[in-house]
Amino acid sequence: MPICTCTPARGTLTAAAEARLAADITRIHADINKVPPTYVDVVFSELPQDSVFVGGRPGTPLLVSGWARRGHPQTETTRLALERSAAASRIAGVPQDRVMVVIQDSPARSAVEAGRVLPDPGEEAEGLDG
Amino acid sequence: MPICTCTPARGTLTAAAEARLAADITRIHADINKVPPTYVDVVFSELPQDSVFVGGRPGTPLLVSGWARRGHPQTETTRLALERSAAASRIAGVPQDRVMVVIQDSPARSAVEAGRVLPDPGEEAEGLDG
Amino acid sequence: MPICTCTPARGTLTAAAEARLAADITRIHADINKVPPTYVDVVFSELPQDSVFVGGRPGTPLLVSGWARRGHPQTETTRLALERSAAASRIAGVPQDRVMVVIQDSPARSAVEAGRVLPDPGEEAEGLDG
Repeated sequence: MPICTCTPARGTLTAAAEARLAADITRIHADINKVPPTYVDVVFSELPQDSVFVGGRPGTPLLVSGWARRGHPQTETTRLALERSAAASRIAGVPQDRVMVVIQDSPARSAVEAGRVLPDPGEEAEGLDG
Repeated sequence: MPICTCTPARGTLTAAAEARLAADITRIHADINKVPPTYVDVVFSELPQDSVFVGGRPGTPLLVSGWARRGHPQTETTRLALERSAAASRIAGVPQDRVMVVIQDSPARSAVEAGRVLPDPGEEAEGLDG
Repeated sequence: MPICTCTPARGTLTAAAEARLAADITRIHADINKVPPTYVDVVFSELPQDSVFVGGRPGTPLLVSGWARRGHPQTETTRLALERSAAASRIAGVPQDRVMVVIQDSPARSAVEAGRVLPDPGEEAEGLDG
């Protein structure tokens, strides 16, 4: 259901670290937003080092952006962003100074998974089980 | 005007299937949101298979995300997502269980195409023709 | 703080042009949205030419999408999009007809940088300085 896209400069994360970070982001998201882990998609889109800039100069940020259904309490979305940032820093071995996390949203009814329109947050029983 | 980004794991779609899916997504979008087909951008951003995770484990989802101007009726955006999901499943030859479609939006006035600020939905005559 | 993702078809921009465009986008953003340049992330995600479609056919658009904190005045976001479009066209050497700029947003409190929740636009002193 949610999508998380990590965009590191090439070489920032090993394949093993990607797998660990994907597992951790999934666990955090399932816990805070109360969705089954199998509904969490995490992808890594590595970019060449000379294609990444911070402050207009070559840099090595770890960008973690994502989408979730609109309507979760803001305090939970903030917690999600904070925990993702901490996990990315710890698992990638980069200081949090270089980690930027953004969570975007749009209406659940603007999204379709497994052929079904997504339920609003709090209305999952109908959408996920039946 | 709208942008659609398909993110398959490598090998999910052949080049020919990408072209067919791009054509279908364009047709669907032009039909539902009533914009000229030439304003629809569709891109495919293939990722290595070991960079894609579902439920914290390696997976092969077909993620189809996109942007459209805010202000289209929600029922039409929902229909757009449903039809994109069906097209992606049929053309890529993957079950809908593996397809996730998300449509995001922001104000038309936050977007510029061909040097011109986009018109709000329903105000196209001014923006596209003059 | 803001993220800008440029998605050109391969060969549209040289490495030197990418660096110049990143610097220009950063300057424009820092100026209009009044954030320190060091908080602006710009990345380039080149795609194979046969993975990019306009109007359902192979094309060579230069897509420039991005995220900023919600709450900036709309007139400034529109100016940001216009200036990005002009810079991309001029530096990449492509006509503005092929340039599409979209700025998305979500609440500042849905984003974390350097381990800290972002401040709302206009509240930067607290968030950036301590």
